[in-house]
Amino acid sequence: MHLTLEHILGLEKFYRRNLINSISGFKSANLIGTQNESGTTNLAIFSSMVHVGATPPLQGIVSRPDSVPRHTLENIKQTGFYTINHVNVDMLKPAHQTSARYTASEYEQTGLKADYIADFPAPFVRESKVKIGMELKEIIPIHLNGTYFIIGQIVLLEIDDNLVLEDGLIDIEKAASVAVNGLDDYYLPQSIDRYSYAKPNKEIISIK
Amino acid sequence: MHLTLEHILGLEKFYRRNLINSISGFKSANLIGTQNESGTTNLAIFSSMVHVGATPPLQGIVSRPDSVPRHTLENIKQTGFYTINHVNVDMLKPAHQTSARYTASEYEQTGLKADYIADFPAPFVRESKVKIGMELKEIIPIHLNGTYFIIGQIVLLEIDDNLVLEDGLIDIEKAASVAVNGLDDYYLPQSIDRYSYAKPNKEIISIK
Repeated sequence: MHLTLEHILGLEKFYRRNLINSISGFKSANLIGTQNESGTTNLAIFSSMVHVGATPPLQGIVSRPDSVPRHTLENIKQTGFYTINHVNVDMLKPAHQTSARYTASEYEQTGLKADYIADFPAPFVRESKVKIGMELKEIIPIHLNGTYFIIGQIVLLEIDDNLVLEDGLIDIEKAASVAVNGLDDYYLPQSIDRYSYAKPNKEIISIK
Repeated sequence: MHLTLEHILGLEKFYRRNLINSISGFKSANLIGTQNESGTTNLAIFSSMVHVGATPPLQGIVSRPDSVPRHTLENIKQTGFYTINHVNVDMLKPAHQTSARYTASEYEQTGLKADYIADFPAPFVRESKVKIGMELKEIIPIHLNGTYFIIGQIVLLEIDDNLVLEDGLIDIEKAASVAVNGLDDYYLPQSIDRYSYAKPNKEIISIK
């Protein structure tokens, strides 16, 4: 299949949406937990989380302005805080269900439990094994299409014991964290191997 | 394990790097192909590709200014074009090897083959089954840590026949596209299920 930009723009809308949403390859599936100033909670599934840096620990998400995740963006603007929670296979159906256009809180509607940790001002997801507390640092408007790149700093981490390896890597296979293709196609990854740091003229070896 | 920002900043450097690089969950593994104005090619593995929009088709990558991928950023600035190529399991070792600090082209050094399609002004990777030609639209500096968010428009797509489903979704399991955890831990995802569009008070069903 060979497509130019002109072909892509001429595709039927849903076909193009599926194609372009799966073009990056596998993505993470995370639930973003927020609340507004009145304490009304919101929970939304995102597949656009991206590493921005380790020192300081920064993560980005891309948010649309005109759809379900709008509550997420509004709440983050209001309070300056949000949570990111890995979706694992046991909570996958309710996690996918958060993308429905609810007026009430997705916590109430899907049965996923809100968890408050210390005095962090946004709700986590109890069922998640990797919970991240984020403080908003910058919202960058992307004028090309009206989306926003939301960058936050990790200020709290709560991870199930026995999921963090000796060198800091999280064993997300053991956590049964899922990967997503496109908007609705979910996967459970199985290990191929872990490779040594690459250097010129040195063969890669397994470090698993 | 419960960590605050203070704990995270106090962690040993490599431990923190592994932890924070795996905190988002599974990521895609893609090779970015570029060349400079003199035609010298470069190939670098990235795990920071993120969907920005389907109409027009926009994708972003986060790039560090101070490391191996610098050639990628410089070449993109010089020519305005780059390619994104899915890493599949059969080309995984040479793909990982592109992260070594080579002075010569990673195409020559790793054995991956440069592929030129039509008159597109950047090299693809012959071994890849999903090849994307990108035109640079915007480079957004992230002042928080000196990285860059590079946004491009998809202007060319070449995908192996039989990999695109009827509704446009790419069968990236069949393509054997890999997922990565952290910097070096690779996975081959296996299907859980594909779910229907979520609506309030309607049960999710399988659409696989």
